[in-house]
Amino acid sequence: MLKEAIYHRPKNNFAYAYDGKTLHIVLQTKKDDLNSAVLIYGDPYNWSDGRWVNQTLAMKKSGSSDFHDFWFIAVKPEFRRMRYGFRCSDANETTIYTERGFFQSPPADTAFYFCFPYVNGIDVFNAPSWVKHTVWYQIFPERFANGDKSNDPENALPWGSTPPSPSNLFGGDFQGVLNNLDHLVKLGVNGIYFTPVFKANSNHKYDTIDYMEIDPQFGDKETFRKLVKECHRRGIRIMLDAVFNHSGYFFEPFQDVLKNQENSIYKDWFHLYEFPVVTKPEPNYDTFAFVSSMPKLNTEHPEVRNYLLDVARYWILEFDIDGWRLDVANEVDHAFWRAFRTIVKEAKPDVYILGEIWHDSMPWLQGDQFDGVMNYPFTDAAVDFFGKREISASAFANKITSVQHMYPKNVNEVAFNLLDSHDTSRILTLAGRYPARVKLMYLFMFTFPGTPCIYYGDEIGMDGGQDPGCRACMIWDENRQDQDIFQFIQSLIHFRNTDSIVGNDGDLHFLSVDDREQTIIYEKSSNERRLIFMINNNDREVCMKNIFTQEKEEVNELIPEQGTITKRRVDLAYSVTLNLEPNGFKILEQIFKRLGQNPVNKKAWHSPFR
Amino acid sequence: MLKEAIYHRPKNNFAYAYDGKTLHIVLQTKKDDLNSAVLIYGDPYNWSDGRWVNQTLAMKKSGSSDFHDFWFIAVKPEFRRMRYGFRCSDANETTIYTERGFFQSPPADTAFYFCFPYVNGIDVFNAPSWVKHTVWYQIFPERFANGDKSNDPENALPWGSTPPSPSNLFGGDFQGVLNNLDHLVKLGVNGIYFTPVFKANSNHKYDTIDYMEIDPQFGDKETFRKLVKECHRRGIRIMLDAVFNHSGYFFEPFQDVLKNQENSIYKDWFHLYEFPVVTKPEPNYDTFAFVSSMPKLNTEHPEVRNYLLDVARYWILEFDIDGWRLDVANEVDHAFWRAFRTIVKEAKPDVYILGEIWHDSMPWLQGDQFDGVMNYPFTDAAVDFFGKREISASAFANKITSVQHMYPKNVNEVAFNLLDSHDTSRILTLAGRYPARVKLMYLFMFTFPGTPCIYYGDEIGMDGGQDPGCRACMIWDENRQDQDIFQFIQSLIHFRNTDSIVGNDGDLHFLSVDDREQTIIYEKSSNERRLIFMINNNDREVCMKNIFTQEKEEVNELIPEQGTITKRRVDLAYSVTLNLEPNGFKILEQIFKRLGQNPVNKKAWHSPFR
Repeated sequence: MLKEAIYHRPKNNFAYAYDGKTLHIVLQTKKDDLNSAVLIYGDPYNWSDGRWVNQTLAMKKSGSSDFHDFWFIAVKPEFRRMRYGFRCSDANETTIYTERGFFQSPPADTAFYFCFPYVNGIDVFNAPSWVKHTVWYQIFPERFANGDKSNDPENALPWGSTPPSPSNLFGGDFQGVLNNLDHLVKLGVNGIYFTPVFKANSNHKYDTIDYMEIDPQFGDKETFRKLVKECHRRGIRIMLDAVFNHSGYFFEPFQDVLKNQENSIYKDWFHLYEFPVVTKPEPNYDTFAFVSSMPKLNTEHPEVRNYLLDVARYWILEFDIDGWRLDVANEVDHAFWRAFRTIVKEAKPDVYILGEIWHDSMPWLQGDQFDGVMNYPFTDAAVDFFGKREISASAFANKITSVQHMYPKNVNEVAFNLLDSHDTSRILTLAGRYPARVKLMYLFMFTFPGTPCIYYGDEIGMDGGQDPGCRACMIWDENRQDQDIFQFIQSLIHFRNTDSIVGNDGDLHFLSVDDREQTIIYEKSSNERRLIFMINNNDREVCMKNIFTQEKEEVNELIPEQGTITKRRVDLAYSVTLNLEPNGFKILEQIFKRLGQNPVNKKAWHSPFR
Repeated sequence: MLKEAIYHRPKNNFAYAYDGKTLHIVLQTKKDDLNSAVLIYGDPYNWSDGRWVNQTLAMKKSGSSDFHDFWFIAVKPEFRRMRYGFRCSDANETTIYTERGFFQSPPADTAFYFCFPYVNGIDVFNAPSWVKHTVWYQIFPERFANGDKSNDPENALPWGSTPPSPSNLFGGDFQGVLNNLDHLVKLGVNGIYFTPVFKANSNHKYDTIDYMEIDPQFGDKETFRKLVKECHRRGIRIMLDAVFNHSGYFFEPFQDVLKNQENSIYKDWFHLYEFPVVTKPEPNYDTFAFVSSMPKLNTEHPEVRNYLLDVARYWILEFDIDGWRLDVANEVDHAFWRAFRTIVKEAKPDVYILGEIWHDSMPWLQGDQFDGVMNYPFTDAAVDFFGKREISASAFANKITSVQHMYPKNVNEVAFNLLDSHDTSRILTLAGRYPARVKLMYLFMFTFPGTPCIYYGDEIGMDGGQDPGCRACMIWDENRQDQDIFQFIQSLIHFRNTDSIVGNDGDLHFLSVDDREQTIIYEKSSNERRLIFMINNNDREVCMKNIFTQEKEEVNELIPEQGTITKRRVDLAYSVTLNLEPNGFKILEQIFKRLGQNPVNKKAWHSPFR
């Protein structure tokens, strides 16, 4: 047994309270090393005749990454306290793994064991319940639709008349969104994430001038209020972008600093190195990414903190927004985000707090700061496999399994899954302009746990490279829209909204991966039924093994078409193989005739994160 | 290379801000597997010609546990942001380890690397600076000294007339402490940790009746105020015990619940399962450890939280106490402790917040909750090796190295190190009543980083088993006191107080361990000098290799005696070996003639946590 590879540590993705009563415990071991892992657990204070009273529960292998297996078990300790260790067995030996290391038999002293001291409800990660049922649509307001010519900036260009540049303007606004809500309703999304809408200097508005004002180019507060109301009337929630890490150059306090220098009452609002403060040749103050026009805000200063908290509260209380997406969230102090969570949840308990963090974000997802982060590790795995075709099927499955085990299950359920954004190339471009590959990616994203997001225009087949390419004007001419991809996404959203195991109620488990054919089969399952997804990530037809050949099962094929899902009874029992067309897929539904009936792959059936 | 054993994750003991500018980075690898580990790091936004600008720094092996090596490096990233990975090499291969796994060459995309996004000062772990220069003395007030007969409880027994029982009383009080401050000053301690002093029912006072009152058996508030003042006058700080996890049976709100049941205005102050609330045969409410007279407080309830926060503030503002030790701290919610830290530090910024947690406590030591925890993992290693002689020298070194790598260095510097307490057997008893073993343990504790504590009476050789045995009346008859151990501890405290590398300013590194002879040699070092500690943890004389044979060094022997340290020049250059008597030790001091001069063991010289 490779003891060096065995890892566990409580109060993160390895051990967490899933709810007020349930603990999830995960153990990492070397891949294909252990035959079994068993949880030894008990109440720390339950002793009998001088011996600690404990129980055991067999853990289930929930998945594998490149180098490790993960073992999972859910437990409900009666008094919400637990000491625990692991009995690990391979062909040669059995060892007890505890916080104090490895032992031949379970230590008598409970102090040696891992400890989950007490499940206090207030500490349990608790995101708004609506988030996991939401499909998002990201709008870059300057480029979605121009609905009101009267608020166009002076130098606005005719809609879509030229390619996007870092500075050109086309007059997109809130009225444009209002005019096109039917498009969103038709697509089926129920959340809009707006990149910044507050008064700013650039076309992307990440350089805020006034956090309390709507950018006049987008309309006024009344239009925004109307927009929120009209969206809510249609069941669509609204999330705004909070750029609190830094201000823009024309933010009044920063202008005051430039003007009054050491006499400025705002000099502590920023991280200034010296006076006089200069922006050239190099800024002598902290910035975002060395951009002199984006001075970093000193969020530790009480005035700054209170100002930004007022901003956070204002747009919730006055306009009833439903979410805050936090730009460059990881560079702002944790103390600020804790205060932010408190005041935001006081203002409206079910606001979604989404941090922009591209890397491992466990420190922000402990229940005291964010509800979710932008799931770029998911993005990268999906793009590399389906889009760029740079990694093998097994590498993809390993990466996705790593992503699933990176955070607690309740965190994964509200992870913001995206294929692209205003910060990346568009997904069609990343996929070499092959719509078929893009479809497979959407199929995977919409069947993956979390809260998926579509970047405006992707649904009608827009392409474009990195900023500014990905920020082109939305194409409203239906003749230039790809209706096929639109209907496909529409079908998937319908699928997700009408079949709960497509989304967060189904456990995802890979059943087979084939590196030669670049095919994957995974399931989403509940106790009653499962969906099998067979994907041919290959430009040629492949013949996949039919996993139903061993039993006479009632199987339906589900076909996303015409914006809905068509169900068709199929008899696969006598087919040894199934042909999948190039970049094709099959979705099969299996209903278990009675509880406990074995699906074909019994091992796989003990699927992750039950 | 065993990639399965390689581990790193930011924002805990593996990567943390040591101060506002310095990051400490630790990598775990399989023991004796790598030849080198190199940090690859850079600012995430520093790009040149489309390539990320990064640098490298060789890491140093800072120690080994049973199965792993630890590699350490300190970095000061200019803009307080860092992306980083590791170049790991063994004899056969070199690989780049990042957040996204292993690569043959450094990935171009910074999103793949580990991320320490930004060092925000407010998030940096920041304990009061006095703590690391403090030697504590734990007093169990009922048993230290009876200075005022007038406040004796009715059934008080003559001092020390019988062995301690779970319920007997001897009249120990604050006046008794006041009368004996000379003893503490003579010993050299500069902090007192009192187990609970508030009005309670038992002799241990962990079953609080009134958090706002001194137990009348101990005196009144004026006596306590005088005690704090007299201690402060002598440079001794005072830490009280906050039992906030649960109240006592006679706590008025709980009595109100028992009396008024569902009509009690305090019914939400506890975790009641049903009405009527009963204490027998089993309590139908949450308790501490199934003890019906210790109902768990609902610290999530605003009234309870505010009441307890008022308590925390009151004893600081009114009596100027210097520390709070938090009983059963791990079972109280994190949210409460965050609020607690905020109000306590507002009341007095340099109050020490010490949590009673026996297990891995990283989640409480992130800077937002506690300053330290009771270091029982250290205790266990020391007791098992020096006291019980149950583990080998190498097992001890591995355990101690694990303890050193369990938390950040700034956390270790204020870890509350103890050999015993009111919750364990006394150290003399644990050491089989061999004072020589106890001396070795004190030698090790006083030369170990952290803030050490002596349990009352240990310094004069008291013994006793688990509660109640360890809670006997302090022996004041000098004829019955072990003056030898007293002077020894006195000498060590003097040593620690007068030579900064004995305590937290010296890096501890094991130079050799011998499992056959049960000997260890470790050093505490700075850039200018080092102290070598040679310990014979064996009941017979052993002959240890003289590590100075290779060079003609100026070496002093330091001898703790008569409450001080005697220094004696020794010439060891021509001795191949040194004899150490049974349970004996030698302390040698080496002064480096110039910076960079090699000590004998060059590898060891690159000591941990520089």
